[in-house]
Amino acid sequence: MKDVAAEAGVSAMTVSRVVNGGAAVAPRTAARVVAAVRKLGYQRDDVARQLRRTHELSQIIGLLVDDVADPFMAAVASAAEDVARQRGSVMLIGSSRADLSREREVVAAFTARRVDGLILVPAAGSHRFLRPAQAQGTKIVCVDRAAPGLNVDAVVVDNFGAVREAVRRLAARGHRRIGYVGDTPRIRTFGERRRGYLAALAAAGLPADPALIGDGLRSGPQAAAAVTGMLALPDPPTALLAGNEILAFGALAVLPAGHAFVAFDDFALADRLTPPVTVIAQDPVALATRAAHLLFARIHGDVAPPRTVVMPTRLIERGSGELPGPFA
Amino acid sequence: MKDVAAEAGVSAMTVSRVVNGGAAVAPRTAARVVAAVRKLGYQRDDVARQLRRTHELSQIIGLLVDDVADPFMAAVASAAEDVARQRGSVMLIGSSRADLSREREVVAAFTARRVDGLILVPAAGSHRFLRPAQAQGTKIVCVDRAAPGLNVDAVVVDNFGAVREAVRRLAARGHRRIGYVGDTPRIRTFGERRRGYLAALAAAGLPADPALIGDGLRSGPQAAAAVTGMLALPDPPTALLAGNEILAFGALAVLPAGHAFVAFDDFALADRLTPPVTVIAQDPVALATRAAHLLFARIHGDVAPPRTVVMPTRLIERGSGELPGPFA
Repeated sequence: MKDVAAEAGVSAMTVSRVVNGGAAVAPRTAARVVAAVRKLGYQRDDVARQLRRTHELSQIIGLLVDDVADPFMAAVASAAEDVARQRGSVMLIGSSRADLSREREVVAAFTARRVDGLILVPAAGSHRFLRPAQAQGTKIVCVDRAAPGLNVDAVVVDNFGAVREAVRRLAARGHRRIGYVGDTPRIRTFGERRRGYLAALAAAGLPADPALIGDGLRSGPQAAAAVTGMLALPDPPTALLAGNEILAFGALAVLPAGHAFVAFDDFALADRLTPPVTVIAQDPVALATRAAHLLFARIHGDVAPPRTVVMPTRLIERGSGELPGPFA
Repeated sequence: MKDVAAEAGVSAMTVSRVVNGGAAVAPRTAARVVAAVRKLGYQRDDVARQLRRTHELSQIIGLLVDDVADPFMAAVASAAEDVARQRGSVMLIGSSRADLSREREVVAAFTARRVDGLILVPAAGSHRFLRPAQAQGTKIVCVDRAAPGLNVDAVVVDNFGAVREAVRRLAARGHRRIGYVGDTPRIRTFGERRRGYLAALAAAGLPADPALIGDGLRSGPQAAAAVTGMLALPDPPTALLAGNEILAFGALAVLPAGHAFVAFDDFALADRLTPPVTVIAQDPVALATRAAHLLFARIHGDVAPPRTVVMPTRLIERGSGELPGPFA
């Protein structure tokens, strides 16, 4: 390294930057370092390979989310971008709206433009279509949920276990009619959350009533309409679990005060409502930061087998989830 | 059109799609239509020009925002993407974090990849650097604020007038110590909001106290710290205006109940707080939709002089802004 630095007339830090990528180096300086490496025969295989790889990089990564209007996705995007920036890359974002054909169009726009890697919040459905891009060297990491048909790193939470525990507590506090609103269970996160809800009901000996399950809801107004329908039942729910922040906002717009309520995902002002809202908090910044670091490790040569990282969730009991039910 | 359709063995609709762009047509079909147009000498200048233009399009547009973690920006992004989708284009998003050099990197990533157009929420500072891209045919529309040094379409609101009116009402209700928290006034929207605040104070004969003005705030915790400092003054404010949603969340975390408060931008659950929060509402969906339609008009040949569209804001009086001050 030192010989190369002296030959190129730059610091060892600059040589390291050129060889390992990451921080920006002026093209002329980089060219001097490359020339010095060649002249000195600094040709250890791994260094040469890394040098070649770094010089082929576009310094662009792509992020594919459902919709940036979803605050969880926006937080994931912002945090992943912070890492990209630290690593000297620009991150561009595209949205699938949970639609696989739309996802394919966005991914095609990314790969045709030679992004170094992709962070995916994959839509439902097989992701085998990404295998050619993978074979051509595009690195891929999933966040929030794994992609069916694609063997890559994923950073997720235990959606099943987190919801099962929250619903178990509602049942233990005397609720026998517990409602659920979520998006389609074909989306893995929602499938797992719904499965956790059903498992907790079964464990408590409570029947699963289809009238208390709202699926395929994607907006606040849709959630509000579903909850209004449940509240109009002869035997309405006394507690409700909302599958994400957008659906929680819709539910809160129509739920009467004093109705037990738990939301998946923490949100701004949850502690300023009356009663303060109990949430299952995941940490989108930690999830995205971990995923982005995994992606850059892959881009810079990590060839270990793909791994799935499960990050913790936290049940924050603020009041709305601890209201006693009629059978308390 | 009919002759071309017959010659190419396709529908008139398909010919129109190829000539006018928008909906996807298989490359082979498009090539047949182009060949038929040539063979039949269907060469009216405008048609030929439009055909050429459409065939040079990448069907990708770029959106540059401050930060998608800002809910206003996320709503802008989501709405602009809806239009792009209707127009058969993929929209990719990049963030400047209100930093001009970062904006230049993102814009370079877009233009190097031949986007058809850019929707910009421009950072502070001269945007003359975009003139070469403009000269090469990249269409540009600004939203939320105009770009200094760039003569392009812009879709904005009257930030000055909206804040002046809100602060005028606070003063008329007996508040003489009115605080303000905002980002740097070098960002045009915040500069205008701050100017509206100062104009209302002057009109009410109230002095502008630097201790009641928080500038350069970019996060909830920063806003909370600034407001905490104001509340600890010997002569604290009795009313506060927050310059956007993120700063409003920070302020609400520390403001005592019963403190008069107005926020720029409406937000989810504003009507569920105690007291419900008075806001200056703009419509990010309408702003972004208008901007995106302007962009596609430019992409498809609109050469009218650049225009600035001013969209309305609405003061929604929910309670927190109508609390009387000590001089009521």
